[in-house]
Amino acid sequence: MINKLCIIGVGLIGGSLARALRAAGHVHEVSGYGRSIANLQRAVELGVIDRVEVSLADAARLADVIVLAVPVGGMAEILQQLAPLLTDQVIVTDVGSVKGAVVAAARAALGARFPHFVPGHPIAGREQSGVAASVPDLFRHRRVILTPGTETDSTALARVRTMWEAAGAETIELTAEDHDRILAVSSHLPQMLATCLMDLVVRHDDHRAILDCAAGGFRDVTRIAGSDPVMWRDICLTNRDAMVNALRQYHAELRDLISAVEKGDGEWLLATFSRAKHARDGLNKKN
Amino acid sequence: MINKLCIIGVGLIGGSLARALRAAGHVHEVSGYGRSIANLQRAVELGVIDRVEVSLADAARLADVIVLAVPVGGMAEILQQLAPLLTDQVIVTDVGSVKGAVVAAARAALGARFPHFVPGHPIAGREQSGVAASVPDLFRHRRVILTPGTETDSTALARVRTMWEAAGAETIELTAEDHDRILAVSSHLPQMLATCLMDLVVRHDDHRAILDCAAGGFRDVTRIAGSDPVMWRDICLTNRDAMVNALRQYHAELRDLISAVEKGDGEWLLATFSRAKHARDGLNKKN
Repeated sequence: MINKLCIIGVGLIGGSLARALRAAGHVHEVSGYGRSIANLQRAVELGVIDRVEVSLADAARLADVIVLAVPVGGMAEILQQLAPLLTDQVIVTDVGSVKGAVVAAARAALGARFPHFVPGHPIAGREQSGVAASVPDLFRHRRVILTPGTETDSTALARVRTMWEAAGAETIELTAEDHDRILAVSSHLPQMLATCLMDLVVRHDDHRAILDCAAGGFRDVTRIAGSDPVMWRDICLTNRDAMVNALRQYHAELRDLISAVEKGDGEWLLATFSRAKHARDGLNKKN
Repeated sequence: MINKLCIIGVGLIGGSLARALRAAGHVHEVSGYGRSIANLQRAVELGVIDRVEVSLADAARLADVIVLAVPVGGMAEILQQLAPLLTDQVIVTDVGSVKGAVVAAARAALGARFPHFVPGHPIAGREQSGVAASVPDLFRHRRVILTPGTETDSTALARVRTMWEAAGAETIELTAEDHDRILAVSSHLPQMLATCLMDLVVRHDDHRAILDCAAGGFRDVTRIAGSDPVMWRDICLTNRDAMVNALRQYHAELRDLISAVEKGDGEWLLATFSRAKHARDGLNKKN
């Protein structure tokens, strides 16, 4: 149970966490802080938060748990502003899609308070963004990856773990480095592929006819291209090395495929498509 | 209204067409022909077809409309076998995902009967294949692209158009060349991207962790990787030039993206992601 929870950045993820914890009765009061007063007022109207914090100092002073739910590119700045304002008992956690860069920013900003920072990343989302898209069951049966380090306070870690479990999620732990390498393939790479396809089509001479002929396959592959561009720019800028590795690997795989199509290598194509189908069928069974 | 319809290749598409026309009362009798007797008997048991044709000669002699619903790679052979068996009044149509190669095979095989061949392609599918996956509403509100040439008999064309409309689809006409160039981008390219991603993951050192961390985005992008490998090998082999063009264009677009991530070019990334989001949001509104 959390007495006072403060969400910094009340959008899809922050808003959904607030809704989930309220629905579960795991929080007594939720306040919100952010750049846009209009957005925070909307969050109050929607019943997502109880109160708008007008200063970061109030947010920090009154909260038991502070959740940073701003785009990854904004984490360093907010951590620096927050550092001198934190009380001894407050726990800070985040929901950023990249962990190495956020952990480094937290370490640099928080100093002696760094052990009370618990890095986290809920593997959940929607292609819509903003508080209006937030829902209480976004994290239900989803995984939340926590990436504590050796310094992380075990009580702080346990409280954040319990918070996510109250929101319906299952928590797992990885190192920040493993997280960033794995998510570069499982999440960041598909996002780039969908976006590139949508961008290729919109700039194509035949773009109208292509969209007229687009069926379920095209729609599924490109669905996540509708996600928040700022969030994804920040992920690219902060998980650069792992993303470049994953993208280069894919680029080489695609080059091999192009060469097989060019040569009419039916055997290679059938073997590759069969292997991919087998793996995808396995993923279906997993759910 | 069709008196006797013969489906050659009673799988997902052929079976769904039979179901749709029966449900609409647009066909009096449906027979099926194919390589696997077990599959045809299954189709009878499922109520998809009335009768199994045991020879192609019977199928050709008794039918008013013959639908070729075999993988594109099998079209030339079946057309050659069928050619000497066709009566004057029979109309032949197909559902192949590639049109140039099928039209060329039909022209070569059918000779004087070529005007009664109507090339078609329903833009519908599921990642499951086989007659057990067939459903009567697969073509409802879907587009069917017909690619008649100047020689195509107008009565034959009108009958095939009416058949698809009875199945719930909307028909449009394109040249075979335009069809193949456009579908290479709207359908064949997304299929290759999904398959490559699934294949990269299954061969990855971290494949277990990647699949454990895969959420909705990964699942959506890779869903169609579960499609029939033989069908897709055949599409690659028969629409080679248009596919290589589309794949190369994508490969170049991806190279530009990799370079922008590598350089940390936030401005380029934000502009590209915003353009793609705008286009994808437009596609949502369209439906």
